[in-house]
Amino acid sequence: MRSPDKYELVSELARRRGFFWPACEIYGGVSGFIAFGQLGTVLKRKIEDKFRERFLRRLGLYEIESPIILPGRVFEASGHVENFKEPMVECTRCKRKFRADHLLQESAGISSTEAEKMTLEEIGEAMESRGVKCPECGGDLAEPRYFLTMFQTTIGPYAEAVGYGRPEAAQGIFVEFRRLYEQARERLPMGVAQIGHALRNEISPRQGPIRLREFTIIDLEFFFDPEKPGCPLLGEVENEVLRLIPAEVRLKGSEEPIEITVKEALEKGYIKMEWLAFFMALAKRFLVELGVPEDKQRFIEKLAWERAHYSAQGFDQEVYLDRWGWTEVSGHNYRTDFDLKSHMEESGVDMRVFKEEGRVVERVETSVKPKMDVIGRDFRGDAPKVARLISKTSPEELEKSLEERGFYTLEGYKILPSHVEIVRKKRVERGRRFVPHVIEPSFGSDRLVYVVLEYAYTKKGSRTILKIPRDLAPIEVAVLPLVSRDGLPEKAREVHSTLISEGFLAEYDESGSIGRRYARFDEVGTPICITVDYQTLEDETVTLRDRDTWEQVRTEIGRLPQLLREYFRWEREFKDLGTPYRKP
Amino acid sequence: MRSPDKYELVSELARRRGFFWPACEIYGGVSGFIAFGQLGTVLKRKIEDKFRERFLRRLGLYEIESPIILPGRVFEASGHVENFKEPMVECTRCKRKFRADHLLQESAGISSTEAEKMTLEEIGEAMESRGVKCPECGGDLAEPRYFLTMFQTTIGPYAEAVGYGRPEAAQGIFVEFRRLYEQARERLPMGVAQIGHALRNEISPRQGPIRLREFTIIDLEFFFDPEKPGCPLLGEVENEVLRLIPAEVRLKGSEEPIEITVKEALEKGYIKMEWLAFFMALAKRFLVELGVPEDKQRFIEKLAWERAHYSAQGFDQEVYLDRWGWTEVSGHNYRTDFDLKSHMEESGVDMRVFKEEGRVVERVETSVKPKMDVIGRDFRGDAPKVARLISKTSPEELEKSLEERGFYTLEGYKILPSHVEIVRKKRVERGRRFVPHVIEPSFGSDRLVYVVLEYAYTKKGSRTILKIPRDLAPIEVAVLPLVSRDGLPEKAREVHSTLISEGFLAEYDESGSIGRRYARFDEVGTPICITVDYQTLEDETVTLRDRDTWEQVRTEIGRLPQLLREYFRWEREFKDLGTPYRKP
Repeated sequence: MRSPDKYELVSELARRRGFFWPACEIYGGVSGFIAFGQLGTVLKRKIEDKFRERFLRRLGLYEIESPIILPGRVFEASGHVENFKEPMVECTRCKRKFRADHLLQESAGISSTEAEKMTLEEIGEAMESRGVKCPECGGDLAEPRYFLTMFQTTIGPYAEAVGYGRPEAAQGIFVEFRRLYEQARERLPMGVAQIGHALRNEISPRQGPIRLREFTIIDLEFFFDPEKPGCPLLGEVENEVLRLIPAEVRLKGSEEPIEITVKEALEKGYIKMEWLAFFMALAKRFLVELGVPEDKQRFIEKLAWERAHYSAQGFDQEVYLDRWGWTEVSGHNYRTDFDLKSHMEESGVDMRVFKEEGRVVERVETSVKPKMDVIGRDFRGDAPKVARLISKTSPEELEKSLEERGFYTLEGYKILPSHVEIVRKKRVERGRRFVPHVIEPSFGSDRLVYVVLEYAYTKKGSRTILKIPRDLAPIEVAVLPLVSRDGLPEKAREVHSTLISEGFLAEYDESGSIGRRYARFDEVGTPICITVDYQTLEDETVTLRDRDTWEQVRTEIGRLPQLLREYFRWEREFKDLGTPYRKP
Repeated sequence: MRSPDKYELVSELARRRGFFWPACEIYGGVSGFIAFGQLGTVLKRKIEDKFRERFLRRLGLYEIESPIILPGRVFEASGHVENFKEPMVECTRCKRKFRADHLLQESAGISSTEAEKMTLEEIGEAMESRGVKCPECGGDLAEPRYFLTMFQTTIGPYAEAVGYGRPEAAQGIFVEFRRLYEQARERLPMGVAQIGHALRNEISPRQGPIRLREFTIIDLEFFFDPEKPGCPLLGEVENEVLRLIPAEVRLKGSEEPIEITVKEALEKGYIKMEWLAFFMALAKRFLVELGVPEDKQRFIEKLAWERAHYSAQGFDQEVYLDRWGWTEVSGHNYRTDFDLKSHMEESGVDMRVFKEEGRVVERVETSVKPKMDVIGRDFRGDAPKVARLISKTSPEELEKSLEERGFYTLEGYKILPSHVEIVRKKRVERGRRFVPHVIEPSFGSDRLVYVVLEYAYTKKGSRTILKIPRDLAPIEVAVLPLVSRDGLPEKAREVHSTLISEGFLAEYDESGSIGRRYARFDEVGTPICITVDYQTLEDETVTLRDRDTWEQVRTEIGRLPQLLREYFRWEREFKDLGTPYRKP
């Protein structure tokens, strides 16, 4: 019998103690959905709060929260309706459906790199020529087709009002860019993050918490002036060493990482933008703080055909996991002005920013005046609306369309040259108008929770110890009476409620032997167990036990809040929490 | 011209400064969806964290996080597919759609109480007899029909796998009850909360942040033994005075609240369950901490036909708002064992808990043995699955159905008496098996954000001051150089980065006159502005300015972190942050 891998061990613990498990088990589960329990929810929030701390509060970047369901036009503009799809194939006999490219990899030995490059037709041909059959019933497979991997719904009572569950939180930031920029008093660079649920309707997700249909995404969109791409904070990270696999190395067939400083990676052109490198360095440090050693991390550059449709350069930060090998935990993409431009085109709202500068630019400004008489005649009752639409739209777009196609479509209305007057004015401007560029670091919270647990999972003999970094522990301290009699429980409850009122995540437990209770708290990563014993009743001291070393120190109850606060802020080590103590 | 109401004032400020605004404005907005900006996101999280602090951490209750999209069966079991709907009517001419009961209220002067009681047929008849027409185009209206107000989607590539966006977070807790109960080591009472997005596909939401299609819900499900309904914590709240409008008072036509202590309200039977009263008292205190005075709050009991389908007694906590009058901010329902029982029936999984007790109960235990020969003959390849389903199902349910209907349906398989053997064993148990009962307090975060802003919104002459309770302020301190020259900016940046590294939400600002900057921070509720002036360069002291009184004190930079920490924890008042200071 093979021994269980870490994924099995962690999952069993996670389910039993309340980190996470497959959602809706009573209804047989739904693959791709998990539930976080008492401990998992706190761990997840602490990870997200650490992101807020490291990437937002300290750098003065913002966080917003916008809807998960967005109208269809958002994802038409963003390119998701066009591109966010997977090749799917159905068995003609049992009607089961499969990811066509995965099937091709599994049954015909085609590599994932090759499969990802293939068109739908090529996949179909390859399946046919290699005689790929249904893996479940051996039946013949139909022609592959694309399956849109966004969840679709209808907003309100009108069937035509299509909405989608967002596959990324980024679009919620891009569509609000104008307002966010005004609120930030029109300053660049500007960084805006969003942490929230996202939805991807995968054809057949497996891999537990690693590939989910509903998950929590952490998207940070960092907007900057493409003419000023320099990162003034680079000095803080330039000597950080990254383990990098550049695209040019991959194209030569190697996946061996180069160890290189941020500074060198920029100089050698491996990373094209300073801000991209800056956030990659922060991401590396972030994962180290989550418990992943440097040599278990790497950044792999995406090849052209692997990149998302919006990305000009992209790296995946990968972490080594026992079952799945190198696994993406964050993506770092240079999205250029792709998204803002796309929304500008689709909505007709100007997304450009104006930057005052010394230089004087003379430019011709085009504007469009609706001709109300003609519009009135052609559109009747809708004329005011059409006129309003015309004055809101981008004059450049409208003029270009009239010239090239002879008309322009605005929310279904066909605008002809006769409906408008194109007005040109010369203007002298002291500055430039441009669409900001974007660097995006993006994490998945659920995966990070799993990664923390896998790296924290250790054995000491037959005992499990979850060595979660102390500041992420979902239960910070346990308060335990040595025995449940002679007034010890009362005293321990007193200590417990002091710690609660001082803001700690503290638990009280009196059931079972003290050894069993220690084991129970080791298993969920509680860094410190406080034991109230007979001596406590005499001198108001307690013992503190370290999860990782099982060493004990003795200290006064009155000093606990301050000492523990320093300990959890990493300002004090365990041995400095009291005087060494050995059981008498 | 009428002067703007508070909703207009708050909304304008919220949009301009980044609290909240209608989402997707560049695409014309989608009613019922809002975006929270930089300041709104922090305020919302601080409100939710205060809930966590007051309702969870201090009481030892749990929080979980489960999916927003759940499979159809969950909401079939919960009764939502059946009951979560609104009467809708369509205009036969312009095809616009309306809430039928609202139209009846607006055009025929029928009260909301009356309209809510009416069946679909009665609504149709009333509209017909009163000649209600389309309010937009005057056209004839079709027969009203029900519109399901859940967002529907498909999970995965199979069209029959219907999923819904959850209209409440509660079901995500009920379906996981068994696991949560095991993780909590099978103890009652047990409280489990979930804070997350929820979706209600309203026909035509207006009212900005008050009625949303996507919103954040805070559901707390408190499970207890119905034979032990007492609340041991009642002493902590029994003298809290509630402003209560019991159903019996409403039925007499009055909406005048009775001022009554928790204790009396229980004694007089106005509130039927102690835990219900306990959480109502906490909810009142919570709203006081959010800035709503006692006399602007009340609890109104729901009448039988107003209650949700799962509720045996329900109160709405209402807050008085300038535009909308008394508005629900939380619901408090006694859900009995309705939900757990419903899921037990639908899933066949036993949701009962076992409680060991002194008394010895002799009971006959029924179990069901699948007869494999008959099952094999009738179900062939599916036989093992059918046998597994039979052994998982509740024997009582199955037996009852076989007796009453002659068959039992299990995931589409028709089970006949010939397929099973009913086995009975006598067992002596030291305890009872029962389905726990549930009290549910439930808040909406978005509304709470709005409520905090409306109650914080004040004018001092022409200046706006947002008197947000200090511990909820999204920007805690602003650091301002008096002028932007002579080394003051450098010194101020130093102070700013000290405060950042000490964990404060601090902003630095040097643009514009000091008076304008004070005004800017007053308007977003920053409790304290720290000014660095020429004296700072000499003696390392700064001035602190109070948002609400505009008073100033002077204090040493080195003492700031500790003083401010105490101030934000309400352990120190503004005047005790330094020595009184008047501008020289």
